[in-house]
Amino acid sequence: MADHKRGKQSFVLPQLPVITGWASVAGKKESEGPLADYFDITSKDTYFGQKSWELAEKQLQKLALDTLLKKLNMQRQEIGAVFSGDLLNQCIGSSYPLRNTGIPHAGLYGACSTMAESLMMASMCVSGGFSDKVVAMTSSHFASSERQYRFPLGYGGQRTPTAQWTVTGAGAAMVCSAGKGPRIESCTMGAITDLGIKDANNMGAAMAPAAWSTIKAHFEDLKVGPEDFDLIVTGDLGQLGKDLLMELAGKDGVNLGGKLTDCGTLVFDQTIQDVHCGGSGCGCSAITLCGYLLNQLNRGKLQKILFCGTGALLSPTSTQQGLPIPAVCHAVCIQGGND
Amino acid sequence: MADHKRGKQSFVLPQLPVITGWASVAGKKESEGPLADYFDITSKDTYFGQKSWELAEKQLQKLALDTLLKKLNMQRQEIGAVFSGDLLNQCIGSSYPLRNTGIPHAGLYGACSTMAESLMMASMCVSGGFSDKVVAMTSSHFASSERQYRFPLGYGGQRTPTAQWTVTGAGAAMVCSAGKGPRIESCTMGAITDLGIKDANNMGAAMAPAAWSTIKAHFEDLKVGPEDFDLIVTGDLGQLGKDLLMELAGKDGVNLGGKLTDCGTLVFDQTIQDVHCGGSGCGCSAITLCGYLLNQLNRGKLQKILFCGTGALLSPTSTQQGLPIPAVCHAVCIQGGND
Repeated sequence: MADHKRGKQSFVLPQLPVITGWASVAGKKESEGPLADYFDITSKDTYFGQKSWELAEKQLQKLALDTLLKKLNMQRQEIGAVFSGDLLNQCIGSSYPLRNTGIPHAGLYGACSTMAESLMMASMCVSGGFSDKVVAMTSSHFASSERQYRFPLGYGGQRTPTAQWTVTGAGAAMVCSAGKGPRIESCTMGAITDLGIKDANNMGAAMAPAAWSTIKAHFEDLKVGPEDFDLIVTGDLGQLGKDLLMELAGKDGVNLGGKLTDCGTLVFDQTIQDVHCGGSGCGCSAITLCGYLLNQLNRGKLQKILFCGTGALLSPTSTQQGLPIPAVCHAVCIQGGND
Repeated sequence: MADHKRGKQSFVLPQLPVITGWASVAGKKESEGPLADYFDITSKDTYFGQKSWELAEKQLQKLALDTLLKKLNMQRQEIGAVFSGDLLNQCIGSSYPLRNTGIPHAGLYGACSTMAESLMMASMCVSGGFSDKVVAMTSSHFASSERQYRFPLGYGGQRTPTAQWTVTGAGAAMVCSAGKGPRIESCTMGAITDLGIKDANNMGAAMAPAAWSTIKAHFEDLKVGPEDFDLIVTGDLGQLGKDLLMELAGKDGVNLGGKLTDCGTLVFDQTIQDVHCGGSGCGCSAITLCGYLLNQLNRGKLQKILFCGTGALLSPTSTQQGLPIPAVCHAVCIQGGND
């Protein structure tokens, strides 16, 4: 059997899957941030024309998928599979938009790592020859997340300084066996770390060790280092988590300075948008990738990035039961379209 | 690029992944049912020694994985990846047992289709050469499910005649690139169907159309029919859903009689165990497969089965908002070890 496994947690893609198209949909706050010009659709209506925030999140994914198909001049029937997931209980943000579309669907749960996880699964599927046109997709919604994980918005609870702001947005990427666009070179599947952080308002601290564990594994498994990438982009540790990741890497003698950035710090302007530690939610890395990053890769402004989706795998129940927050990070190495 | 895609939703596995081992853990009621002798571990303690039902479910998966490794005389470090998911909010039953184990993990959400979904993902991963030893795993727990989806158990709510009983159990299967055991031949990834069923106590009716949609796709894509299988095993439609599936197939001119069975009807004795329409939950098809079915396949008592995991993709929030129940079914064709 062919062996594309590398080291402990990684694999290379013998035939590089191509990201032939991408689409992003963003909410009001996101469309007032520094990446506004890169989003395909923005809306000032938090409900996106729906009756509830959960249905609004469904609509975000529907719009992202429809926009992706429109940009590629493709029909639904051409899609071989959709790999998607979200933060809502039982991932209803991902299943509802696909009802009765006839599109094969595999549901994922990786919390805020879902954009990277779905790209990783799509890569295996396409490079392995199991399908030729596969969509990786995810979303999050500030209001549906806040009421599910924390407090009802109407309660007006005060946010702690370490809190992050869940992005309202969805991103979708088309991963194909052939075509033009950025290409996926290798992936590292994360192992779940848990250093005992219990504060559900400090996700950055819970996720930073998972991020370093996976980035370190990627470096070791593929025999590469920070110098091999234009950017190492975590999504989404926020400011505090990003600083912690720098520190953890430093302790292992690796300097990520000048290379490391984080979707949570890219998507909002922390100085004026009052988001505390930055953005979070599956939608944060999804719109940053499917808006800004893939665009830069495609234009040759970035040659190679390590896209590292980080997820905090807590639930409201685990928080109420006083359990610590496990975290995971999946890394996907993407090269520019003009390589 | 190699093309293993067949028809609209299916793929074949060029190098058949082998299920070299399997393990099942079951609760009290399940160990009083007809499959009792096939389970590796049974317990009369609903809490499995833990403080909460959610932690009990974590423990179910931990026990299943540990038992699998013990039966195979393998170490944790040898596992290339675990594909797993469960019904609990944010899949904490799957993430908590893997904390700090160093095992790469990809989280799935497919509701009660998860055993089939995880086998499908594991097959792609192994047959594509991305890893060589991969675990497919899932669980459910009666008490954690009831309080999450329906009523607190202490409330003593009366169950409707169409209700199914969530199985307390976990199953794990080791999918490898080489070795002895039943082999995975092909898979069909399901599309989400929704015919408007809104009764969260009638999952069988919600899932039957999804089951038929996927079985029909498998037949058409792979050019096979009921005659090519010893058994077509859905998991888990229950009695009502199974009858509906027979009817739906009949309307399309296909007779599933004599071939069709359902994990929800196999796992309990409906005449004496008061489970109404039968078993349900991710654990239902997991323990039926990783207890009974793989055993029969390995001994040559079954030559080929189509294992069809069916999942109802509702959430407590979608139910409260009056939304219908989307459903999905993934099918995995498994041949006996003595073929």
